[in-house]
Parts: sequence; C-alpha cells; structure tokens
Amino acid sequence: MGSFIGYRCSICQHEYLPGKVQYNCPHDGGNLDVILDYPTIQKYVGPHQILESKEPSLWRYLPILPVSEVGYYDTPFHRAGYTPVFSTPGLGKEYGIADLWIKDESRNPTASFKDRASAVVVARAREIKADVVVTASTGNAGAALAGMAAAIGQKAVIFAPRTAPPAKIAQLLVFGAQVILVDGNYDSAFDLTIQASQEFGWYCRNTGYNPFTAEGKKTAAFEIWEWWETIHQGTVKPKKLAVFVSVGDGNIISGIHKGFKDLYALGWLDRIPRIIGVQAEGSAAIANAFRQGTEEIIPVSANTLADSISVDLPRDGVRAVRAARETNGTYITVKDNEILGAIAALGKAGIFAEPAGATSYAGFVKAAQAGLLNSDEAVLVLNTGSGLKDVKAAMQAVHEAPIIEPNMRALKQYMKK
Amino acid sequence: MGSFIGYRCSICQHEYLPGKVQYNCPHDGGNLDVILDYPTIQKYVGPHQILESKEPSLWRYLPILPVSEVGYYDTPFHRAGYTPVFSTPGLGKEYGIADLWIKDESRNPTASFKDRASAVVVARAREIKADVVVTASTGNAGAALAGMAAAIGQKAVIFAPRTAPPAKIAQLLVFGAQVILVDGNYDSAFDLTIQASQEFGWYCRNTGYNPFTAEGKKTAAFEIWEWWETIHQGTVKPKKLAVFVSVGDGNIISGIHKGFKDLYALGWLDRIPRIIGVQAEGSAAIANAFRQGTEEIIPVSANTLADSISVDLPRDGVRAVRAARETNGTYITVKDNEILGAIAALGKAGIFAEPAGATSYAGFVKAAQAGLLNSDEAVLVLNTGSGLKDVKAAMQAVHEAPIIEPNMRALKQYMKK
Repeated sequence: MGSFIGYRCSICQHEYLPGKVQYNCPHDGGNLDVILDYPTIQKYVGPHQILESKEPSLWRYLPILPVSEVGYYDTPFHRAGYTPVFSTPGLGKEYGIADLWIKDESRNPTASFKDRASAVVVARAREIKADVVVTASTGNAGAALAGMAAAIGQKAVIFAPRTAPPAKIAQLLVFGAQVILVDGNYDSAFDLTIQASQEFGWYCRNTGYNPFTAEGKKTAAFEIWEWWETIHQGTVKPKKLAVFVSVGDGNIISGIHKGFKDLYALGWLDRIPRIIGVQAEGSAAIANAFRQGTEEIIPVSANTLADSISVDLPRDGVRAVRAARETNGTYITVKDNEILGAIAALGKAGIFAEPAGATSYAGFVKAAQAGLLNSDEAVLVLNTGSGLKDVKAAMQAVHEAPIIEPNMRALKQYMKK
Repeated sequence: MGSFIGYRCSICQHEYLPGKVQYNCPHDGGNLDVILDYPTIQKYVGPHQILESKEPSLWRYLPILPVSEVGYYDTPFHRAGYTPVFSTPGLGKEYGIADLWIKDESRNPTASFKDRASAVVVARAREIKADVVVTASTGNAGAALAGMAAAIGQKAVIFAPRTAPPAKIAQLLVFGAQVILVDGNYDSAFDLTIQASQEFGWYCRNTGYNPFTAEGKKTAAFEIWEWWETIHQGTVKPKKLAVFVSVGDGNIISGIHKGFKDLYALGWLDRIPRIIGVQAEGSAAIANAFRQGTEEIIPVSANTLADSISVDLPRDGVRAVRAARETNGTYITVKDNEILGAIAALGKAGIFAEPAGATSYAGFVKAAQAGLLNSDEAVLVLNTGSGLKDVKAAMQAVHEAPIIEPNMRALKQYMKK
C-alpha cells in the first residue's frame, strides 16, 4: 500500500520518516503516532470494501494498517481479531441502559485483546527482518507475542514478573518462547527488556514503546465501527455510543482512540464515540491525571488483583488521558471487589472475563449508577481477556460448590438445605 | 423445517417417533440416532446454500439439525462452532505428511468442543420447554452447558467429580450454574445425574444418553466437509482425508461419524473420510473393543491425566467402535507422556491444547511413525479444548522458566549458561 509515511511524537509533534526512528521520540521520549497517508488510502479503498470483506480477522483492515501483505493464512497468527459483539439487554436493563453490548476479546487466538498488537508487531518484525522479538509482559501481551510468533516460526523472548498468574506463564512456555521471569514487578521487567533489546539487537514489542502495538489495537475500533454500521444498516442513527475500556498502561485506550481518529480522518465515521477509561483504584495513575486536568502522569505503587492493568508507571499515559478528554469521555475507578462482582455478572450472561477484562464492566455499572450515561445512549464494554487466564481471581468472585457423596440420599439432603 | 422424524436404536434398530422417547432405547438402552428426512432437506436446501451462508456459527447447518429456528442472536449461545482449521506443514513434515491440519475447538465460546453439543441440547430444551437442564461432566461439557444456558437465561445444574481441574470448576461457577461436586468419579456423577433428572423432572444432557449431543457434535463434520470443499474449490480432489479424534466416552467420534453419514445420505459428500479414534492407554475401553473386533465394551479402571477422556465405562462405545470400523479407520492408544509431548508440539505451532485435546495429535504422531498413513493422505487433527483449562498438565509438558533479578548483570549471567 505504501500508506505508512512516518511517525509523529504525541508530545512535541515532531515528525519522523519511517526508517528514522523505531520506538519512542528521541527528543522527549513521547509515544509516537503512526502517520498514514489518508488520501492514498482513500484512493484505493472505501468503507464498503471493508464492510464487504470476507476476511474473518483483523487483516480485513490491512489497507489502513502500516504493514503490507502479511501472508501466513490458516494460522492462529492470521486469525487474530474480528471478535464477536454480544447483546446483553438483561444486564443493561438493571441500570436503565437498553442497548448494552460486550465485545468479547477472549475469543482471540491466545484468549486476550493483546493478540491484536502482537499480530501487527510480528508482521512488522518480518518486514524489518528481525531475528528476535522481545517483550515485557504481565502475561497476556507475552502470551500473545509467544503465540503469534510460534504460529509463524518467529523467535520470541518474554520477560514477565514471577508473580504473573500460572495460566499465563504456562501459555508462554507452551508456545515455546524463551521465558525469563524477573523477581520484580512489570515495571522492572519493562526496563530490563529495553536494555536487553538495545544490547542484543532484539526487536522490542514493549507496549507504550513500540508504535506498532497501538496500530494493532486500533483494529478493535475498526470492528466497533463495522459492528455499529451493520446493526444500523438502513436506519437513521439516532443514538450515541459510549465505549468502556479497562486501562492499565494506557495503550489499549490510545489504540482505540487512534482507530476512531483514522476512520474520522478518512471520512468513514461522522462522530467519534465517547471513550470511557476504567482503572482499578489501586492502579489509577492515568485516572488521577485526567481528574487533575493534566497530562503529567505521576507513578503510583500499584495494588490490584487485576494483574493485567496493575502498573506503577503507565507507559502510554498521555495519549490515554487524551482518549477520554478529546472524545467527551471520562475516567472511572473501581475497587477490586467491584471487579469481582463484574466477573460474576458477566458470567451470568455467558461471558467469562479475567479481572482486567471485567474492570470495564465494573466501570459501566458505576457510571450508570452515577448517572453519567444517558438512557438513549448505547454502551459497548470491552472484555479484554478470558477468565481462564486467572482462575484464582475467578474463584474469589463466586461461592464454592458443595461436595456430596454420589447418591440420591446425599443429594436430597443437600437440596433440602 | 420438520425434517426431524424420529429416532433409531443403534443396537436393535427399533425406530421411535420424536415424542415417544427422550433418551436411550427403552428396550436395550442403546444410543439413539436421530433420523432426519433427507428428501425433505434436499427439497429445501442444497450444499451451495450452506457453503455460501454468512452465519459464522454452527447454526449455518440449521436445516440439517433436529431443532427449528433458534434465535438468541448476538449471544455466546449463538456463536458456538465454526472454528478455524489451521495449516501446520511444519509439524507434518517431520512425519512425512505434507498436508497436516488442526481444527481448533478451543475457539468455541467456553473454549471446548462441547459447546456444540450444549448449544443444540439447550435449543432442544427451549423447544420442549424444559425448566432445568442437568448434566454430569468432567468439566468441559458442564462448562459448555453452563455457558450456553447462561447466555439465554436457561437454568442449569451440573454434577462434576470434585477432582475436575480448578479452571473447569471456576467456569461452571462463574456462569452461574448450580454446581454440585461429587466425591467420586465421572461415572458416579453420570449415574446420579440420571437418577436426579428422573426424580426432579430435569432435562438431562448427559453425553451418550441424550441423542441431541451427537447431533450438536456432528456439526464439526459439516465444518470439515465445508473446509475440504473450500480448499479444493475448482480443483480435482486427489487426496483422501484422515480425521483424528480423541475419544473418551465415544460421543464426539460418534457425532462426527453421524455428520459425515448425513452428508453422504444427502449426496453432498462422495466419500466419508476415515476416522481414527485416539484413546489414552489408561482409558481405552473403546480401543480395546475395536481391537477385539467386538462391540462389547468392557469397563476399565480409568487412569490418565487427560481428564476429559478419562472414563471407566464409555457411554457411546458401540457407535464409537463403528465410527472407525465403517470408515476404514482405526484406534490408537497413547501414553500420558506422549500426550504431554503433543501439548508441547502443538504449542510450538501456536495452538494451546488441554491434554484430551492434544491426545488426537499424539495419536497422529504414533500412526505416522507406525506407517499407518499414506504420504499422499491429508490429515486433520481435532483439538477439542483449550490448554487454559488445565494449567497443571500444561506445566508438566514444559520446563519451568528461570527466575532472575531484574537487571542486566543477572540477565547476562543467565544467558551465559
């Protein structure tokens, strides 16, 4: 396509040609936005070609991505994204919202949203002929990188905190990545990964550092746009849409914002939905900044059971603040017990979310109760990962099951209680 | 559609009208096959309508299923099935098979093959206006029932052995089912479930008892047929296909056989693929019968880490023996350490399987090594469930990761080793 024409620093607005930089802004360390040549894209593709595409993955958006032909058909790598959106009027009714939808990212190949970023970064790694891709991860990003890399025979190295949930570590190992656990938190793994990538010449996928992660994540916005267009096909679109996103380092919400901005710039979207970030109270550096009306992100000492969004210093905080501010959205913070309540509520609708995945729903509940939503507003909540990733947390969300002898006498005795 | 016209006992061949029986044959306890009116189906639908359907779920086969319009669009219930088939030439080459494919059932809503059965049984439960659906389960069937039921507000009760993997029990509970763990094995849960369903009037989903489970499972055969048609579109079909299926109680392999038989009877399929059943050595009652050339299933005392296929008395053994015998297939048995090896091998291709899911691949390896496959034969291996369902087993398949201090000195020291 040749529509990828450079980067722009989100802080100083300085622009770079594609070959000139690789990660953050050399001047101020700001996150780089990928610049696409919209007129060129418009020349070759229109919204209808996307909407009519038969490609059941995020690669249906290839013309709006900064990578070229990706190949590897019939692999888990190719089948990332294009996740279902579920209608849950039953859940919404309780809070006066008739139109409540859950986009279920647990249906991705490695069962989390992070497959979107890893697929696009791995595609980029192939283009620049990287030998090794490395990432720091609380688990999901690493599993996604390990899985996407395994699917196409790319070598991957993963640094994760030793405290990551066992299911996530098992995934990393089974996918055959070189896994190194650090006796520290995500932030220390992050710093070590950058040093290692510089010293060993590895291509670094780190979230909030590599500009291609947000480009992968923006595909969720493209899918939300497609879904919105499809359910309103042939009707006037009277409703506004609010999108709830769990926020840790801020890269998912930034990526989604970028996706909507791309669509708006292309003229395919009239109005960007408002984006509402949800953070755990114990890991709320971005929400704090939003509330202070600043873009200065002050680190916290993170403490939440939602491990995927537990982060001291969010690496994509500035753009994450803007995602809410520029779309008339807001930030909500929720307690761990509200997150556990959200796991149970989503489960009763047939959706099994990990703590970070249910955090967005907990934020929706709180926003609805606080009167922050209009009753004629449609709401889409993003579940970012499968509950199978963190069984220990899931068990805290429910009551244990009784154990009985396998006979009718014991069953009847139990049923009487 | 009205194409569901009755049942036929797989043992005595006695036929029953739809309203006359509900579970097994009243004469001899044989499993009932659902009889479809093929001429009626042929009148209303042809293969091309199916192949061109835009429905991304097993409901694309509604005209060949014994339930009518199912509704519940935009729910996990509706999004069961239609799982991807992955090409893994790298894995096959080692064994002289160029065309090796994995159908990945972990991409189902509750991350296992069992969603197919549960979706169709729950659809049936709605039609007969059942208040409660109950099942015995080693975990996956229960999670599938709990998930499908939750998605549409159907009440579900699950009996499982207390030894089921924690992830599976967590799923059951999060989906809001009434879960009762029994201090016994799957077989004792099975018997108790049947007694309870009779006494309390619950609709029983038990595998190898309720004829609709195999009808749900046959949709995997329909998808294999569609995939096979699609990849060979416009070409001569020189190759034969062998399908590897892990076997516990025998219901999946029976369901798949039924699906192919339906397609053959409709004239949509020229030749039924050979079906190769794979059992764990420690739970091989069906393989034993196959090897003895008999349909008499003698119970074993099951002992395998592949919990989903660990069963003393297979409840669908007779049809399972026939699935291999009538298709020129065979039965293979594998050791637990071969299953663990298969988990690691599939992982390196980006597919994370639970032990029972990887058993089929372990069987493929053994069959290839034993020269049971022709080099010009295409092979499809079914992964029946996600590795996230049994992390303990996954960790036995891999080496533990090193833990280091988060600094370059420690990293370099480790890398030197």
